[in-house]
Amino acid sequence: MQTELSRTLGIEHAVFGFTPFPAVAAAISRAGGFGVLGAVRYTAPDDLKRDLDWLDAHAGGRPYGLDVVMPAKKVEGVSEADVEAMIPEEHRRFVRDTLAAHGVPELAEGEAPGWRITGWMEQVARTQLDVAFDYPIRLLANALGSPPADVVTRAHDRDVLVAALAGSARHARKHQEAGIDIVVAQGYEAGGHTGEIATMVLTPEIVAAVDPLPVLAAGGIGSGPQVAAALTLGAQGVWLGSIWLTTTEADLHSPALTRKLLAAGSGDTVRSRALTGKPARQLRTAWTDAWDDPAGPGTLPMPLQGLLVAEAVSRIQKYEVEPLLGTPVGQIVGRMTAERSVQAVFDDLTRGFEQAVDRINRIAGRSGRS
Amino acid sequence: MQTELSRTLGIEHAVFGFTPFPAVAAAISRAGGFGVLGAVRYTAPDDLKRDLDWLDAHAGGRPYGLDVVMPAKKVEGVSEADVEAMIPEEHRRFVRDTLAAHGVPELAEGEAPGWRITGWMEQVARTQLDVAFDYPIRLLANALGSPPADVVTRAHDRDVLVAALAGSARHARKHQEAGIDIVVAQGYEAGGHTGEIATMVLTPEIVAAVDPLPVLAAGGIGSGPQVAAALTLGAQGVWLGSIWLTTTEADLHSPALTRKLLAAGSGDTVRSRALTGKPARQLRTAWTDAWDDPAGPGTLPMPLQGLLVAEAVSRIQKYEVEPLLGTPVGQIVGRMTAERSVQAVFDDLTRGFEQAVDRINRIAGRSGRS
Repeated sequence: MQTELSRTLGIEHAVFGFTPFPAVAAAISRAGGFGVLGAVRYTAPDDLKRDLDWLDAHAGGRPYGLDVVMPAKKVEGVSEADVEAMIPEEHRRFVRDTLAAHGVPELAEGEAPGWRITGWMEQVARTQLDVAFDYPIRLLANALGSPPADVVTRAHDRDVLVAALAGSARHARKHQEAGIDIVVAQGYEAGGHTGEIATMVLTPEIVAAVDPLPVLAAGGIGSGPQVAAALTLGAQGVWLGSIWLTTTEADLHSPALTRKLLAAGSGDTVRSRALTGKPARQLRTAWTDAWDDPAGPGTLPMPLQGLLVAEAVSRIQKYEVEPLLGTPVGQIVGRMTAERSVQAVFDDLTRGFEQAVDRINRIAGRSGRS
Repeated sequence: MQTELSRTLGIEHAVFGFTPFPAVAAAISRAGGFGVLGAVRYTAPDDLKRDLDWLDAHAGGRPYGLDVVMPAKKVEGVSEADVEAMIPEEHRRFVRDTLAAHGVPELAEGEAPGWRITGWMEQVARTQLDVAFDYPIRLLANALGSPPADVVTRAHDRDVLVAALAGSARHARKHQEAGIDIVVAQGYEAGGHTGEIATMVLTPEIVAAVDPLPVLAAGGIGSGPQVAAALTLGAQGVWLGSIWLTTTEADLHSPALTRKLLAAGSGDTVRSRALTGKPARQLRTAWTDAWDDPAGPGTLPMPLQGLLVAEAVSRIQKYEVEPLLGTPVGQIVGRMTAERSVQAVFDDLTRGFEQAVDRINRIAGRSGRS
């Protein structure tokens, strides 16, 4: 599974795996893919440093990358406290009432929320970058628009490729103008922040829009035939996030959440603003239903919503309150029916890819294997 | 582009084209695909008979089929007038006000709406079938659930294959239990009635769910690489509807609508209940916005909504009131940028398919052409 981009990066398979877990990222790179560690949950630079040390030591000398969430627009001189102050009391009450209705216990006194979204804020992302550039990362991905120009320059000075997610051709062309090297075409069916255009339509549209930039297809990909389909559409690789959540290397800290993921079908996700204020695909839960209910107060814009719900999400996760328990995940969750190792996922992807190529060759009336 | 199903039907390319226009259906079959005439707009049996006569004479002896819209659930003893009486006055007023706000003229006195949705009603569909079974159709497709058991039996007695659209694996399995021969996996990005699961995820899911029944992939397909991708995912053919709307053989009776279709991007559609009461993807217009506006009365359930808006849609179409003018169409509308003949579309599909197969063979490290 070799494309120009995979050859540039020196990887065996054009499969890019995004994950918040260093053990998963390392296993992806060791399996011949390209592991990308999501940095958004690292609020403390030392935590990121510790995990990058580990990842670097366990990636088997294979290349890996980092994913940050950095808004292109700078918000100058606004502190987290200033933003907190913009949250209406009605919304705070709705959070309290919804948690109370489900009997969600409080955190212990002095206990910090384990889940924070301050990584959305530029100063946090910049601190993460200061740490990350001390490591031999080969790729820096940004999940929220093009990174600022100085960050792109800094990456290029260190021979780090810069990738950015896009949900439309217009968005992708903006990335190209900003000097981005790789566009991740994030289809409607993907987990996390996503637009409304499905992978089947979005991938070739973005490929044509930013030619000759390489495009990674994201959204709806978790099997070998889906990898083959995405590459057939013109992508130079695939970007998989959801599929790793139920690998044995993943560390969700929640058996209940793993059970929910394994049980969920492709129709059990929703594109909701409940988590961050922007539409993000996630498991549909009583929590997303509450926020999406027209009878409720509705969600706040980013970054208010993320700050508003941070402590609540931590409590839901800590106490595994099942009806409310969710996570960003794509429609491919319907295929995630058993815990497997990252290597087993790769074996399945590569075997399924070869079978799919056999199939399309038969349909095309070609002999197939050379 | 040959699959088991295309060989069964004796067609050259596993491309099924759904269209309301006999000239398009005939051209699809002549080009080596399988033309399927949509029957929903035929309220008078003689009109359908006339057009099937024409289609049969112009399909070049190639096979073709018919698509009806027949609800699986029978509504006994309810007339159109009974249904009309269930429409609230608030909704009728909203239609009048919305049309008035855009200065839409009235139809001439005694002029019947050209666009009717009574084809949704079982008695109309049965009359259509009485006509169609006198022709050598090879396929009967139903766009709304499994057809009733006696219709399936009647089709099978005449060696007519029965296809039904499905938006989920559960829905597809119901079709299989009802004795359907072919499932059309209708992805989120498709035009017309569609569910929320995108083609990339839905196609392999339905292929696995109804194995060994053949599956046609629908939604987001309008180029050779998209055809190749869909077949790579396990489909035995593709089902294309939108792409024919801007062919030279299509007869939209509206230069303004053709212009809107050619100008629309992939993000200019919406999944709205405005047309039929069930979510159907269509061009986003001031009309769909009005119905989807939380400040308005909202849509009525099927079949009320279709009856409610029939005359209004006719007036909008007749007078080509541009802000309100729309049509069911999929996200692939972004690729429909020039009027082309059906044959030119086929040439593009087959050439693009071969190039896509070349591409995936290069990526797989195979020599490609045998």
